[in-house]
Amino acid sequence: MHGLMSRLFPICRSLTGEGVRTTLKILQEHMPGLTIHEVPSGTTCLDWQVPDEWNIRSARLTNPDGEVIADFDTHNLHVVGYSEPVDVKLELEELQKHLYSSAKMPEAIPYVTSYYKRTWGFCISEKQRQTLKPGRYHAHIDSSLTPGSLTYGELILPGESKDEIFLSTYVCHPSMANNELSGPVVATWLAKHLQALPKRRHTYRIVFIPETIGSIVYLARHMDHLKQHVKAGFVLSCVGDDRAYSYLPSRCGGTLADKAALHVLDHLHPGYQKFSYLQRGSDERNYCWPGIDLPMCSIMRSKYATFPEYHTSADDLTFVTESGLQGAYQALLMTIDCLEKNKTYITTVLGEPQMGKRDLYPTIAMNGNVSKGRARLLVDILAYCDGTNDLFDLAHILNRPAWELFELMDVLLHHGLIREKN
Amino acid sequence: MHGLMSRLFPICRSLTGEGVRTTLKILQEHMPGLTIHEVPSGTTCLDWQVPDEWNIRSARLTNPDGEVIADFDTHNLHVVGYSEPVDVKLELEELQKHLYSSAKMPEAIPYVTSYYKRTWGFCISEKQRQTLKPGRYHAHIDSSLTPGSLTYGELILPGESKDEIFLSTYVCHPSMANNELSGPVVATWLAKHLQALPKRRHTYRIVFIPETIGSIVYLARHMDHLKQHVKAGFVLSCVGDDRAYSYLPSRCGGTLADKAALHVLDHLHPGYQKFSYLQRGSDERNYCWPGIDLPMCSIMRSKYATFPEYHTSADDLTFVTESGLQGAYQALLMTIDCLEKNKTYITTVLGEPQMGKRDLYPTIAMNGNVSKGRARLLVDILAYCDGTNDLFDLAHILNRPAWELFELMDVLLHHGLIREKN
Amino acid sequence: MHGLMSRLFPICRSLTGEGVRTTLKILQEHMPGLTIHEVPSGTTCLDWQVPDEWNIRSARLTNPDGEVIADFDTHNLHVVGYSEPVDVKLELEELQKHLYSSAKMPEAIPYVTSYYKRTWGFCISEKQRQTLKPGRYHAHIDSSLTPGSLTYGELILPGESKDEIFLSTYVCHPSMANNELSGPVVATWLAKHLQALPKRRHTYRIVFIPETIGSIVYLARHMDHLKQHVKAGFVLSCVGDDRAYSYLPSRCGGTLADKAALHVLDHLHPGYQKFSYLQRGSDERNYCWPGIDLPMCSIMRSKYATFPEYHTSADDLTFVTESGLQGAYQALLMTIDCLEKNKTYITTVLGEPQMGKRDLYPTIAMNGNVSKGRARLLVDILAYCDGTNDLFDLAHILNRPAWELFELMDVLLHHGLIREKN
Repeated sequence: MHGLMSRLFPICRSLTGEGVRTTLKILQEHMPGLTIHEVPSGTTCLDWQVPDEWNIRSARLTNPDGEVIADFDTHNLHVVGYSEPVDVKLELEELQKHLYSSAKMPEAIPYVTSYYKRTWGFCISEKQRQTLKPGRYHAHIDSSLTPGSLTYGELILPGESKDEIFLSTYVCHPSMANNELSGPVVATWLAKHLQALPKRRHTYRIVFIPETIGSIVYLARHMDHLKQHVKAGFVLSCVGDDRAYSYLPSRCGGTLADKAALHVLDHLHPGYQKFSYLQRGSDERNYCWPGIDLPMCSIMRSKYATFPEYHTSADDLTFVTESGLQGAYQALLMTIDCLEKNKTYITTVLGEPQMGKRDLYPTIAMNGNVSKGRARLLVDILAYCDGTNDLFDLAHILNRPAWELFELMDVLLHHGLIREKN
Repeated sequence: MHGLMSRLFPICRSLTGEGVRTTLKILQEHMPGLTIHEVPSGTTCLDWQVPDEWNIRSARLTNPDGEVIADFDTHNLHVVGYSEPVDVKLELEELQKHLYSSAKMPEAIPYVTSYYKRTWGFCISEKQRQTLKPGRYHAHIDSSLTPGSLTYGELILPGESKDEIFLSTYVCHPSMANNELSGPVVATWLAKHLQALPKRRHTYRIVFIPETIGSIVYLARHMDHLKQHVKAGFVLSCVGDDRAYSYLPSRCGGTLADKAALHVLDHLHPGYQKFSYLQRGSDERNYCWPGIDLPMCSIMRSKYATFPEYHTSADDLTFVTESGLQGAYQALLMTIDCLEKNKTYITTVLGEPQMGKRDLYPTIAMNGNVSKGRARLLVDILAYCDGTNDLFDLAHILNRPAWELFELMDVLLHHGLIREKN
Repeated sequence: MHGLMSRLFPICRSLTGEGVRTTLKILQEHMPGLTIHEVPSGTTCLDWQVPDEWNIRSARLTNPDGEVIADFDTHNLHVVGYSEPVDVKLELEELQKHLYSSAKMPEAIPYVTSYYKRTWGFCISEKQRQTLKPGRYHAHIDSSLTPGSLTYGELILPGESKDEIFLSTYVCHPSMANNELSGPVVATWLAKHLQALPKRRHTYRIVFIPETIGSIVYLARHMDHLKQHVKAGFVLSCVGDDRAYSYLPSRCGGTLADKAALHVLDHLHPGYQKFSYLQRGSDERNYCWPGIDLPMCSIMRSKYATFPEYHTSADDLTFVTESGLQGAYQALLMTIDCLEKNKTYITTVLGEPQMGKRDLYPTIAMNGNVSKGRARLLVDILAYCDGTNDLFDLAHILNRPAWELFELMDVLLHHGLIREKN
């Protein structure tokens, strides 16, 4: 995963433009079924309009001595995203209005955008900014802001059921690693796993969109379908560093996605951080909007806006590690695996069955019926297969990870002691 | 408020009689719309009958030496309320059966009544009682207990809606201040504020009644109307001292009145004392009776029966202060204000609206969408305007006082981003 | 009770056989209405079949020197329950497969059974086992395992209502005291109390069955009736020692039986231990099975599988005491008494009634209406007789034991202030 990320890292992505297209084409190498969609600038989507397409070839800020202060070729964060083309000479005082730096991270270049109001700007480190001397600077940005289209990728992996699990991640951030190249990379690896499965119970829908406007566009096109079919979904963002595990709930909590995510994190990473929906900041803002309310939440490593490197050039390929990506991948994979196995069962017999005659219980009783272990676990599962508890409920009642029950449910099914509830 | 209280303080009020009428007439000076009602003695009301009217002109107890032990003209608490007329000479031993004093407050005159069983008595301090010497005493009470009527005042302030907010306070206590002249005085000030408003959303019903029998009488006359129209109500009692804030819930809790009172106290006076309905002691006993269950609770300063001065002559004009009265007034006013503003809203757009184009969000993004402050608050409010949360719920979710949201709701309404739920 | 237990103790009981019949006949001396039922071997009951009947006359294990190692006549725990007849000589090494001992209780004989797979065995103390010397042993068990029947006892005590309270205990354990002769003995004493009552509101059903298969058989015969009529039930087991009080809930908790048991234990024995249904181990396994879900739980002294003497010869007549039995008996009696008295009441008056005119309240008021004591309690009860609270709810709201309310409810009924809710 880290290799793919390194390849994608230098590309200058934004809400729209060639950087997104290049990124999606590279992802297609891993997911041949990934389809790429273009939505024309000006298209009305819910409360929004698709903006003009932004492309940039070069940008350079030079000081009165002709020394290069900031160069797009050195780091694409040096240019404010969606900067309009400019080629002016101006005094430092005037330039300051177009400069951005971060006092909190004085050595890093901050990430700044102005998608919906035309302006231009350069981003430099606070440290560098302090050294700027008076005089006439030259700001040159060779960009274009013209009608074009918004680009996104979509992968549908059909399953036995039309019930869907929905994964959404975003491809609009330039050269940053945890927030955000980790999301598309982990999503790609999950897709590779899922497309290789001999059979899938759920249909999987995985989208690679620009953040915010992308989810607005996608909802405008697919809302009814998503509301009808999505049983659980996850926004993939900030899934690459090694510092923490995090959970951000759906708007009101309690959806199947929340239930699954909480169960997996409770058992795999009990020290994880629980955030409130008030601390949200990605596409759940739209997916969980009142009246839309898709059952979606987030499993993350270090959540956006909580780590100092966030939205600066310090969120780089050293902050994100292979083990950080693997940790998130495994947690999401386990969550998906639990969802694939999750059903509500009902016992087929009245009264505790005679387990001994099925070789599921010791025939010699030496300490009553309160023995521990597998035999007892089978009976305890049966005792709560009453048609109201799904797999997560059973696991919760028995205080065990759901995956420890997978094989036991199969044994009980095999012996005809439980059946799936209609 | 303290001035009005000082004027009303010397009047000898009881369940019935001229003291109540005099008090209500003084209150009418502040509330021209206050109507005064008379209910004849003997009228059956629910399980009760209106008692005979009690009036008293003078009362004096003199000792064997002719010295005055207790004189109604000195303090009206010296006479047991509803004492029948008497003019007897009797030995100290016999007199003791008609004397009342308080060991807990040995310097104060206790407040004693016998409304429904005819008797007579004098109340003196425990300290004075210890000094009584044997001999023949002269007890003289010039009172009358005859068919007449029970008197109460009622002020209706119509609003845009027939939904009512109901305030009930009592005017049956003689010269005591916190319990009880604070209630009528604060109720009068709330009425003055409300009657001066250019418009009121709710209709306001404010009653000044004798305690217990008064609420029985009022319920007997208006029960169906109250059950249909009262959306929230408050019993005003003990709202004048400086020691504490207190909350006494409705019988089962959870009414709109409880929700409003708890919200205001949680934010304005977080150290307030929460009582149980089992510790009730005023007219909520009737208003919240099973099958009546008006949505009523109490916001108090030091609750009745919890302060040592309670029901003695020590509950005087020094125990109650202007700031004590003001504190209760402000808490009740804020509660009423929140109720006036309380509505359930629903967003008019699907998906997070584009706040930037409405100048409600910064157009330059430097730290993602998880910024703090007003812009974020507007979006957070929208995210929970889903038709299930009223203003108190929104404030609770956002962990802010409801009044901080008033102006923000207006902004969202003004921009057409929310509408009131039908 | 301890006397009856001492008489029953030596009898060798098992799932079936003469020991059960002898035991039930002795119990009939105390409960003339106890009927004895026989269910033929091979009868299919739910998922089970009634096993062959087991009887044993003698059993003896002798060592190479002819010394007796274990003799059924000395202690019936020496033989594995349901041992098939055997008369063999075998080397110690071969014998070891048929020997059972407990490392945890090295001085005691463990209790071992093999009901559903034919085998034979002897149980001895771990200490004795360590002394066995090599050589040829003689194992002789004179038992029979032949078609016969399963025996159980049933006592029905009719009440004014067809609503039933169901007590179930078991008579299949050989010479052990807490687990299990305490159950049948305490059940018998409860039956003696109940059959002596001049009237019973509920019908009582008390069964003395072999554990597990007995409740399966009983459910197979009476399931519809039990599901329709049983309002609360208790499994009686481990009700004889002095160490603890214990509660084991119904499968999902919250039944009337749980409510009653928790109320009584909360007030009588607040230090009692609460177990989870996952720690169950008696006939609630069947009575509470999904789809059966009789409202049954257990009030115990030291719960099975929690005390070291459990299922060994150390669970003897010294471990169980008269006071241990009495404690359980009293707790169960109080629970039953509360259930007999438990009804849902509703006030007959609107507004607080005038208690004074009924001599239920002091006519002189000296400290307002917040007085303590009986008068206040009567009004507090009335305030919550709203048709939703049963006696346990009222007691819970007032934070008093239900039995303190019995007489007060009678007073309120007598004065016509409450009526039973239809």
